[in-house]
Amino acid sequence: MKAVQYREIGKGPEVVEVDTPEPGPGQIRLKVTAAGLCHSDWFLMDLPADQYAYGLPLTLGHEIAGVADKLGDGVVGIEVGASYAVYGPWGCGVCHACAEGKENYCARAASLGIAPPGLGAPGGMAEYVIVDSARHLLPLGDLDPVQTVSLTDAGLTPYHAIKAAQHKLYPGAFALVLGVGGLGHVGVQIIRAISEATVIAVDVSEDKLALAREVGAHHTVLSGPDAAAQVRELTGGLGADAVFDFVGVQPTIDTARESVAIDGFIHIVGIGGGILPAGFFSTPFGAAVRNPYWGSRSELAEVLDLARTGAVSVHVQQYGFDTAVEAYGRLHHGQVRGRAVVVP
Amino acid sequence: MKAVQYREIGKGPEVVEVDTPEPGPGQIRLKVTAAGLCHSDWFLMDLPADQYAYGLPLTLGHEIAGVADKLGDGVVGIEVGASYAVYGPWGCGVCHACAEGKENYCARAASLGIAPPGLGAPGGMAEYVIVDSARHLLPLGDLDPVQTVSLTDAGLTPYHAIKAAQHKLYPGAFALVLGVGGLGHVGVQIIRAISEATVIAVDVSEDKLALAREVGAHHTVLSGPDAAAQVRELTGGLGADAVFDFVGVQPTIDTARESVAIDGFIHIVGIGGGILPAGFFSTPFGAAVRNPYWGSRSELAEVLDLARTGAVSVHVQQYGFDTAVEAYGRLHHGQVRGRAVVVP
Amino acid sequence: MKAVQYREIGKGPEVVEVDTPEPGPGQIRLKVTAAGLCHSDWFLMDLPADQYAYGLPLTLGHEIAGVADKLGDGVVGIEVGASYAVYGPWGCGVCHACAEGKENYCARAASLGIAPPGLGAPGGMAEYVIVDSARHLLPLGDLDPVQTVSLTDAGLTPYHAIKAAQHKLYPGAFALVLGVGGLGHVGVQIIRAISEATVIAVDVSEDKLALAREVGAHHTVLSGPDAAAQVRELTGGLGADAVFDFVGVQPTIDTARESVAIDGFIHIVGIGGGILPAGFFSTPFGAAVRNPYWGSRSELAEVLDLARTGAVSVHVQQYGFDTAVEAYGRLHHGQVRGRAVVVP
Amino acid sequence: MKAVQYREIGKGPEVVEVDTPEPGPGQIRLKVTAAGLCHSDWFLMDLPADQYAYGLPLTLGHEIAGVADKLGDGVVGIEVGASYAVYGPWGCGVCHACAEGKENYCARAASLGIAPPGLGAPGGMAEYVIVDSARHLLPLGDLDPVQTVSLTDAGLTPYHAIKAAQHKLYPGAFALVLGVGGLGHVGVQIIRAISEATVIAVDVSEDKLALAREVGAHHTVLSGPDAAAQVRELTGGLGADAVFDFVGVQPTIDTARESVAIDGFIHIVGIGGGILPAGFFSTPFGAAVRNPYWGSRSELAEVLDLARTGAVSVHVQQYGFDTAVEAYGRLHHGQVRGRAVVVP
Repeated sequence: MKAVQYREIGKGPEVVEVDTPEPGPGQIRLKVTAAGLCHSDWFLMDLPADQYAYGLPLTLGHEIAGVADKLGDGVVGIEVGASYAVYGPWGCGVCHACAEGKENYCARAASLGIAPPGLGAPGGMAEYVIVDSARHLLPLGDLDPVQTVSLTDAGLTPYHAIKAAQHKLYPGAFALVLGVGGLGHVGVQIIRAISEATVIAVDVSEDKLALAREVGAHHTVLSGPDAAAQVRELTGGLGADAVFDFVGVQPTIDTARESVAIDGFIHIVGIGGGILPAGFFSTPFGAAVRNPYWGSRSELAEVLDLARTGAVSVHVQQYGFDTAVEAYGRLHHGQVRGRAVVVP
Repeated sequence: MKAVQYREIGKGPEVVEVDTPEPGPGQIRLKVTAAGLCHSDWFLMDLPADQYAYGLPLTLGHEIAGVADKLGDGVVGIEVGASYAVYGPWGCGVCHACAEGKENYCARAASLGIAPPGLGAPGGMAEYVIVDSARHLLPLGDLDPVQTVSLTDAGLTPYHAIKAAQHKLYPGAFALVLGVGGLGHVGVQIIRAISEATVIAVDVSEDKLALAREVGAHHTVLSGPDAAAQVRELTGGLGADAVFDFVGVQPTIDTARESVAIDGFIHIVGIGGGILPAGFFSTPFGAAVRNPYWGSRSELAEVLDLARTGAVSVHVQQYGFDTAVEAYGRLHHGQVRGRAVVVP
Repeated sequence: MKAVQYREIGKGPEVVEVDTPEPGPGQIRLKVTAAGLCHSDWFLMDLPADQYAYGLPLTLGHEIAGVADKLGDGVVGIEVGASYAVYGPWGCGVCHACAEGKENYCARAASLGIAPPGLGAPGGMAEYVIVDSARHLLPLGDLDPVQTVSLTDAGLTPYHAIKAAQHKLYPGAFALVLGVGGLGHVGVQIIRAISEATVIAVDVSEDKLALAREVGAHHTVLSGPDAAAQVRELTGGLGADAVFDFVGVQPTIDTARESVAIDGFIHIVGIGGGILPAGFFSTPFGAAVRNPYWGSRSELAEVLDLARTGAVSVHVQQYGFDTAVEAYGRLHHGQVRGRAVVVP
Repeated sequence: MKAVQYREIGKGPEVVEVDTPEPGPGQIRLKVTAAGLCHSDWFLMDLPADQYAYGLPLTLGHEIAGVADKLGDGVVGIEVGASYAVYGPWGCGVCHACAEGKENYCARAASLGIAPPGLGAPGGMAEYVIVDSARHLLPLGDLDPVQTVSLTDAGLTPYHAIKAAQHKLYPGAFALVLGVGGLGHVGVQIIRAISEATVIAVDVSEDKLALAREVGAHHTVLSGPDAAAQVRELTGGLGADAVFDFVGVQPTIDTARESVAIDGFIHIVGIGGGILPAGFFSTPFGAAVRNPYWGSRSELAEVLDLARTGAVSVHVQQYGFDTAVEAYGRLHHGQVRGRAVVVP
């Protein structure tokens, strides 16, 4: 079968021919219907050899939708021919976090060598993919896999952060969204759907701010040294009760820190490598900073239901295997609006 | 192998010889090391034929500990020879509740024909038992299976109720425990372990009240028509912030209703068949009434950890297969202090 | 000054001339700009003498907006001439509930003789009203008092119930609203504003169901013996995760009980006198029943912010003192659509 | 009357004679029965003139107990002659945070010039003190003011942090306490009282570790470069689920960061000036960092109830006005074990 693999440090993705995998006991083989590209694919392909820990060759793709194609022994509850989304942050399934479906915070995944598909295990950017357990599949039903697949990461990740801060999103509160890209433009929609907080969005270009308003932001602010001051002004001097930084570079993190309210919450979602100096004389009384990671099993179900009600949709650009490498190139150069998806 | 079965409506349990079961794909066979008796076993054996829906013959036993003995295809994470407790309220593993480990509230178990062991599926009061999935096993480690097995129900059920009311158990609050039997005497210990609330226990005999004080109750009250008045007095007139009725007959439910504080919480845990008339002119402003059922996967892990720290222990009376029928008889006649356990 | 008073058991409201009150130390006198009528006014006027405990004569009106007119000694933070809404469920301000702003659940109000304006203390259906403390006033700013005043009860009461069940209103969940009158039609808007749950509304007439759809209900069902069956069908057999009964008569409470999902939550908000028989064989596993009362101080601030964003609005019918008695008559006969407000 | 004042930058505290204050409308005068010394007193006295913003002269003392002595106009609910503790973090009483009793996070205190007693307003290290509102007084009843007064800060501050992390303190979880001084030795007791988490305490001397064990720590570790490694070992490699740094200098903050578990919570309570670099490559997935400040009104009530049940007690060293300056000196040199209290 065809697969998009990262095969050599520093060389970028390639489309190759590999053996079609067979499902072992308890496993499910999906025929892939859509696989999303993600900045974190580039994050790992940009790592030097001594920091790269995902194995080679690595079939990419951790945003995956597919049709159940073949079941290993002992699989129950999965219907061959039905359409599914893959829950990506695979855990042990047994530790305290996993017992609550928070496999994204599995205490034992690292020590047991369990890794998500496309981030250690063979990913979904291929004609077929092996899913390790029925509990990692959610029925898509009538949802279009191409339009939906990105939600398994670009929807779930902001949803997880936003839901963890929902107590801060009461009517009258202010939410600040930094970065209106693949995750941020979904994040704005999620905040609007599950709260009545006022949304302020910040990004580097008028084009991005227009997208922010289109998906529901009440106010938009161009990023820059006085962005935080503008946020203070829009919030009556109090700052934002919940801040979601979907970029995570130093300038956005600085804006986050300078914009947060007393007892507010900052979620650093983007893997931009910035650092927030937390401490008594650096952040307001009661302010918290957290770097959430992906989301839980029930949260993915909720995200798919947001798609079902129409509350959330992703701007998708569609590619085939023949253009997958080009798509990765465009992603690397910031030329993708919304989210890029490969359709086998 | 030997098994304690309910084989004929109205006839009570029998010890019989049955085939030793084989684990299918994804299943695990345990060699049973301990199985607890429970009032709910009698609840179902007392049902008339037209209300009995658990299948015949039924191997009893939903409180189970055992040693992993044989693994079906595709089982991962279970070590043959290691000691485990069984999480009993099996669910589909996939619905929203199950995705959070709350299989006790599975939305689909009934329609899919999934039932707990001993309450539909073959139970643990036998030499061997089949567990349907690795996610339903928790490592016991050094914990003594005989001393611990009852916690899988008689510990988990009160823990689930108490944890759901933990916000009501702040320092200065009052918890009321009605019934200090198998569940109640564990409930008192749990409240003491995870809160600093003041515990008032009510039961029908001085013997039971002595047990209540022994396991940590601050105050005890003999049940009767003026029990609620005594609770009011002990609470400065305000009533109990959290009430746990481990009996559930009409008199205890009446006491619960008359004793609860404004904005308080009543959990009816015991299956005594009583009814609490909830409504604006019957219960105080803001008071809630709930009938919880068993508990979640992570809660069972927490209960086992309460046993590990020594915070919770069960008064156990031990029986063999030869005395299992007699043990059920004693249970039926209220002659078991604490909890009865069959050890194969 | 003019005031609408209840002066004699069984006689209904009258417009009378009374002395204009003076604010004592710590008190504020408001010049009333709007006062809402409420079914609970009739509830108390319908009580027989031996159950009536609100004092006579009683100036009615517990939904109050006004302009600060005169300040007693020691009042800080209130601006004479500014527009305020009155937080009605006055408590002691000091007990555990009051310390969290939940004065609606004050443990000591009854024993201290503290009562809300219009429900014991002199109410707002008059030219002037005395408010006992600055903490019971929320700035209205630009909000129109006539359009907003009803939210202090008809908005706050459903908001309090809905917010307490917000964890049950995740995307994919179903909310059931029973009764789309003064409270219910606001309740539907609140659920839509702060969640992405699917809303099913039930009422007795097509006219009310049309209003329900207008304010945001996704599905509507005519009340009747098979309403619960229709709710089951709309929810895929699972029932509603959160039920809000804004009527509280026996038929709606029966529908609530038959419609609730496993682990669901029923809030009986309406004072219709019905009773929900809670218990193991009457309500689903994990289902809770609660009768909430009014709301907290911070919740009223949030409700006003819902009005500011436009998320919630009340259908208001406006009356003067000369037509106030007529308005009460129309309310008694179910002829008010939305909410009636007296404007001095 | 006598008062301990900070009168000149860099000069330290002095005992002086000042006018006895009179309570204005709404205010209460207490005759002080005990006033606690706190490291934060030295924090502000160590500030250079250009950073000092608390006014001069400043009567010190923000941990205050006293007997109600004289009431201003309009004060209700306070009994002259009764014993009270003072809630210190005064706020506006009206904003969203204050409406929930979280005056410690008042959004408007700074802009309105509201400051706690001893930290801007005249403090309690005097014969009499003015309290601005009845809502800032909690009845002490039979509690000894000298033994209890420190709990208004040294108890409330850790309690607030611990309660905010209570969901992380489930049975089986690990709590890490860094620093077993005035706050830390109370923190250990609080964790033990309201949870069954395992407590690991870290400090610089065996003497402090002995105190830690005495008040309930399960494990103790000497601080130093490998403290975090020892915490990892004690926690089975997973780290601590909740970390409370009661020191806040760079070395303890480093230990906090290196010791926290995936999805864990760090509360930096101590004002040691250290900085925690939060970010994707610095802190584990899901880990949060927060600097809490003091506590809420209902939390202080709960802390006093912890004292009433005997769950929490403070090691107190008692001084008079004549030795108050000496006491401050001992505090500055780390020679106070537990907490120093001045008794007029």
